[in-house]
Amino acid sequence: MRTFFNVEDLGNLAQALREAREVKNNRYGFQHLGKNKTLLMIFFNNSLRTRLSTQKAAMNLGMNVMVLDVNAGAWKLETERGVIMNGDKSEHLLEAIPVMGSYCDLIGIRSFAGLVNREFDYAETIVNQFVKHSGRPVFAMETATVHPLQAFADLITIDEYKPCRRPKVVLSWAPHCRALPQAVPNSFAQWMGAADVDFVITHPEGYELDPTFTGNAVIEYDQRKAFAGAHFVYAKNWSCPGVTHPADYGKILTEDAAWTIDSKHMNWTDNGYFMHCLPVRRGLIVTDDVIESPRSLVIPEAANREISAEVVIKRMLETL
Amino acid sequence: MRTFFNVEDLGNLAQALREAREVKNNRYGFQHLGKNKTLLMIFFNNSLRTRLSTQKAAMNLGMNVMVLDVNAGAWKLETERGVIMNGDKSEHLLEAIPVMGSYCDLIGIRSFAGLVNREFDYAETIVNQFVKHSGRPVFAMETATVHPLQAFADLITIDEYKPCRRPKVVLSWAPHCRALPQAVPNSFAQWMGAADVDFVITHPEGYELDPTFTGNAVIEYDQRKAFAGAHFVYAKNWSCPGVTHPADYGKILTEDAAWTIDSKHMNWTDNGYFMHCLPVRRGLIVTDDVIESPRSLVIPEAANREISAEVVIKRMLETL
Amino acid sequence: MRTFFNVEDLGNLAQALREAREVKNNRYGFQHLGKNKTLLMIFFNNSLRTRLSTQKAAMNLGMNVMVLDVNAGAWKLETERGVIMNGDKSEHLLEAIPVMGSYCDLIGIRSFAGLVNREFDYAETIVNQFVKHSGRPVFAMETATVHPLQAFADLITIDEYKPCRRPKVVLSWAPHCRALPQAVPNSFAQWMGAADVDFVITHPEGYELDPTFTGNAVIEYDQRKAFAGAHFVYAKNWSCPGVTHPADYGKILTEDAAWTIDSKHMNWTDNGYFMHCLPVRRGLIVTDDVIESPRSLVIPEAANREISAEVVIKRMLETL
Repeated sequence: MRTFFNVEDLGNLAQALREAREVKNNRYGFQHLGKNKTLLMIFFNNSLRTRLSTQKAAMNLGMNVMVLDVNAGAWKLETERGVIMNGDKSEHLLEAIPVMGSYCDLIGIRSFAGLVNREFDYAETIVNQFVKHSGRPVFAMETATVHPLQAFADLITIDEYKPCRRPKVVLSWAPHCRALPQAVPNSFAQWMGAADVDFVITHPEGYELDPTFTGNAVIEYDQRKAFAGAHFVYAKNWSCPGVTHPADYGKILTEDAAWTIDSKHMNWTDNGYFMHCLPVRRGLIVTDDVIESPRSLVIPEAANREISAEVVIKRMLETL
Repeated sequence: MRTFFNVEDLGNLAQALREAREVKNNRYGFQHLGKNKTLLMIFFNNSLRTRLSTQKAAMNLGMNVMVLDVNAGAWKLETERGVIMNGDKSEHLLEAIPVMGSYCDLIGIRSFAGLVNREFDYAETIVNQFVKHSGRPVFAMETATVHPLQAFADLITIDEYKPCRRPKVVLSWAPHCRALPQAVPNSFAQWMGAADVDFVITHPEGYELDPTFTGNAVIEYDQRKAFAGAHFVYAKNWSCPGVTHPADYGKILTEDAAWTIDSKHMNWTDNGYFMHCLPVRRGLIVTDDVIESPRSLVIPEAANREISAEVVIKRMLETL
Repeated sequence: MRTFFNVEDLGNLAQALREAREVKNNRYGFQHLGKNKTLLMIFFNNSLRTRLSTQKAAMNLGMNVMVLDVNAGAWKLETERGVIMNGDKSEHLLEAIPVMGSYCDLIGIRSFAGLVNREFDYAETIVNQFVKHSGRPVFAMETATVHPLQAFADLITIDEYKPCRRPKVVLSWAPHCRALPQAVPNSFAQWMGAADVDFVITHPEGYELDPTFTGNAVIEYDQRKAFAGAHFVYAKNWSCPGVTHPADYGKILTEDAAWTIDSKHMNWTDNGYFMHCLPVRRGLIVTDDVIESPRSLVIPEAANREISAEVVIKRMLETL
C-alpha cells in the first residue's frame, strides 16, 4: 500500500477487519517489520488522538518516529508555485517535501481544509504534493477532505458492537459554533457505503456532502425519521460543503439546537449506540448524559485509532 | 504503585533510598520491565528538568515515551463539567483523559496551581480526574499542591551528602518577583517530616504552609535562628498559602531582600549545603557566589531527578 | 571528538569522506555504539532539516534522542552573568547547562547570531558556555558563526558529483529580504579552503566574510568572472559581516536582483551544478527553473545532512 486516503486503498474490507482483530490481539507481534524504519508525522494543524495513536501504533511496530509541527519549531512553508518569496514563509513545499522524504520511510500528514477555496481544498492541493514529491508512501492523518484512519477505526468499532449482521447506521449533522471541515463525514460516508450496513445521512438542507463520498447513500432531512430503528448514531458537525451553492462553501448555515443529540433523540433509535470522532463540544453536538451513557462508544472508537493506524502502517511496511 | 503524589505512596523511605542507590548504579539494568510499555507525559505547563529527566528515566527502563504539550499542538481542554462548550476549548477532559489513557501504560502529569481559587487547587481538581478516569497509574510531575519527584530527589541528595546520621535541614522562604505555587515546599515539608532529619521551616509571617504537608514541623520566623547549626539550607519562594487568611491565597506578601540567601546567611549555618529545586532566579532567591560555591548542591539535586523518576516508574511497571 | 565546530575538529578530510561513504552504505551498522546513549538536541531557533536529519542519524546509531525547544515548552534562559533576574527569564544558563548535561551523553545545539552585537556573536558566547559547563561533547547544529554539519554535507555532495579531480567551486552571495547570519558561508568557506577544490568567493563590496573562515580564498567582485568555468555554484545570502565597517554588522547593504541566480548566470559556468543549503526563498536567491533543473543538487545536499550528522555523532560516541 503506497497511499491511504480512500476506502479503496485498503482493498477487501472484511479482510481488513480480520487483520484489525489480529493486530488488536497481538499489537507487538510485528516488530520485525518496523526495525530501522522511520515514520515522519507532519502536522500543519493541532492534534491529540491522531498524534498519540499513530505514534503508538508505529512504536508497536518497532519503528522510530519523528513528529514535526510545521507551525511550531520549523519554518513556515510556501505552498504556491511561481511566487517571489519575500513574505513570512522561508521555505517552499517543493524543497521541503523531498527533503523530509529523504529522512524517513513513511509519511503521515495532517493538513486541514482552509474552507476558503473549495477547489483548492477538494483538489487536495497540499497532500497531493507530498504524494508526488516525497518518494515515500503517504497516509492521511486528516486532510482537506478525508480522515480515513478515523473512518477505519469507526468501522472496527461498529463491527465490534453491532447487534445484528447488517446494522442500521445514521450519520447525523449536529450544530457547532465554528465552521468545521467535511473530512470526517466525507470519509465516514465513503466507508459506510463500502461496508455491510444500512446507511442513512441526515442533516438540514444545504449541508449535502459531496457525492464523490456519499455515493448512493440515503439522505433523510427529517432527523427523527432517520433515527428510527438506528443501531448506531454517528454525530458530527460540518460546515456547508458547497455542493449546490459553491459560494456557501465553509459557511455555517444554521446552529439549530434542535439537532443537538440528547436522550430524546436517542430514544428514537433501536437502543442505538452514540458515536463521535472527538474532540466534541458538549452542549452543542451532544448532551452530557448521552455522551456519558453506557451506550456511548466515543472512547472505544478513539482506542481503535491505534488499531486502524497499526494496520495501515503495517501494510505500508510490508510493501516497502 | 498506582499513584505517586505523596510520600506515603512510596512506603518505607529507607527501602526507597536503597532502591535509588541500586538504580543509580545500574540505571539500564531493568529494561525488561519497560519493553513494549509506553509512558505518556502530559504537560499543561512549561518544563525543562522534569521533561528531560523523566523522559530519560523512562528510556533507561526501555520504555517508549510520548510527550504531549497540551497548550502547543493539541486541543485546549475544558476542565469543568456542565458547560456549553462554545468558547476556545474544543475538547473536554472527561473525553480526553480516557482517550489518552487508552494509548499508554503509565501517565505522568504536570498541572500547576492557578493560584486564583484555593479550593480548586488544593482539591487537585485536574489531576484527580486523571486518576479517576484514565485507567492508568498516574504520577505527579508537579501538580497544584505537590512535586514529589523533586522531593524524592532532594531526599536522595541529602542522604548522599549528609555529614551526620541525622542532619538539620532548614526550608527557607526567599523573595521572588512573581507569585509561585506551594507545590515544592509542600512536598519538601512532607518528605522531610517523614525522613530521619531535624526539620525547621522559616519564612515571614503569613507564609505558613498548609498543615496537611507540614505536620509537626518546627516553624521559626527568625531566619537567623532557623539557620543556626543547619547542615542543609533548602531555599524556595512561594506565594501566600492562604492558610490563615484565605483571601490572600496566591498573593505576594513581601519581597523583602533580607531573606535572599547570601554568604552571610550561609555563615550562620554549620558549614551547610545550599539547595534549590531550580529554576532559580539569581539575585532574588540566592546570590551568584552562594549558588556557585562548592557547597551548592543544585546540580546534584537536579541530576537525581533522573533517579527519583526511575525508581517511581520502575515501581509502577512492576505492579502493572 | 569532543567538539564539532570547525573543519579541524574532523581531522583528515579524505578519511572523513571515506567514513561518510561507509556510513551511507551501512547506516544501521553501528548501533552497538549508541545503545543506552542519549543525544540531547537543544534548539534556541527554528529548524527543519537539522531537526530531522540529526535525530534520524542518532536513531540510525541506536541512540535515544530528546529534543528541547527552549522557547516552546521550556523556561526562557538568562545568558548574562551578574544580573538580578526579575524579568521574563526564569532560569540561568549556568544552571540549565550542567543540568541538561546530566541527562544525556551528547549535546547538539542550535543558537543563531543575534546580528546586533558582533563581538558577542563572534565570540560564540552562548555555545562556548555549553562546551565549558555541560561536561558533554557538544556539536554545532548552527551557531552564531558556523554550521559545520551543513558544510560537511556539502563537501560529501561535491565529492559525489565532481566531474574532475579538483573542481572549481564558487560561493556566490545572493539577495534576500531579511538579514541573515554568516554561519553557512563562514563554514562553507572554511571547509572549501581545506578541501581539494579551486575555491572562489563572489559578492558585492562590503560583504567580505571574516578572514578567520576565508583564509586565502580568492575573492572576485565580478560575479560573471567568478562563475567562469565553475563546476559548482553555491548560492547563499548573508548580511554584512562587519569586517571592514563594524557598524554595518548584520545590515542589508543591497538587495540587487542582478545577483539572483538564474539560467543566464548558470550559463556562465562549465555546466555547473547549483547548490544551496536550504531553506531557500525562490525568486530572491534563485529562480524556479534553476532550482528545479537536473543540475540542482539541493535535495542530495539535504539528504547528506543525515550522513554528515551520523559520522560526527559516531565519532563522538567512539570517544566517550
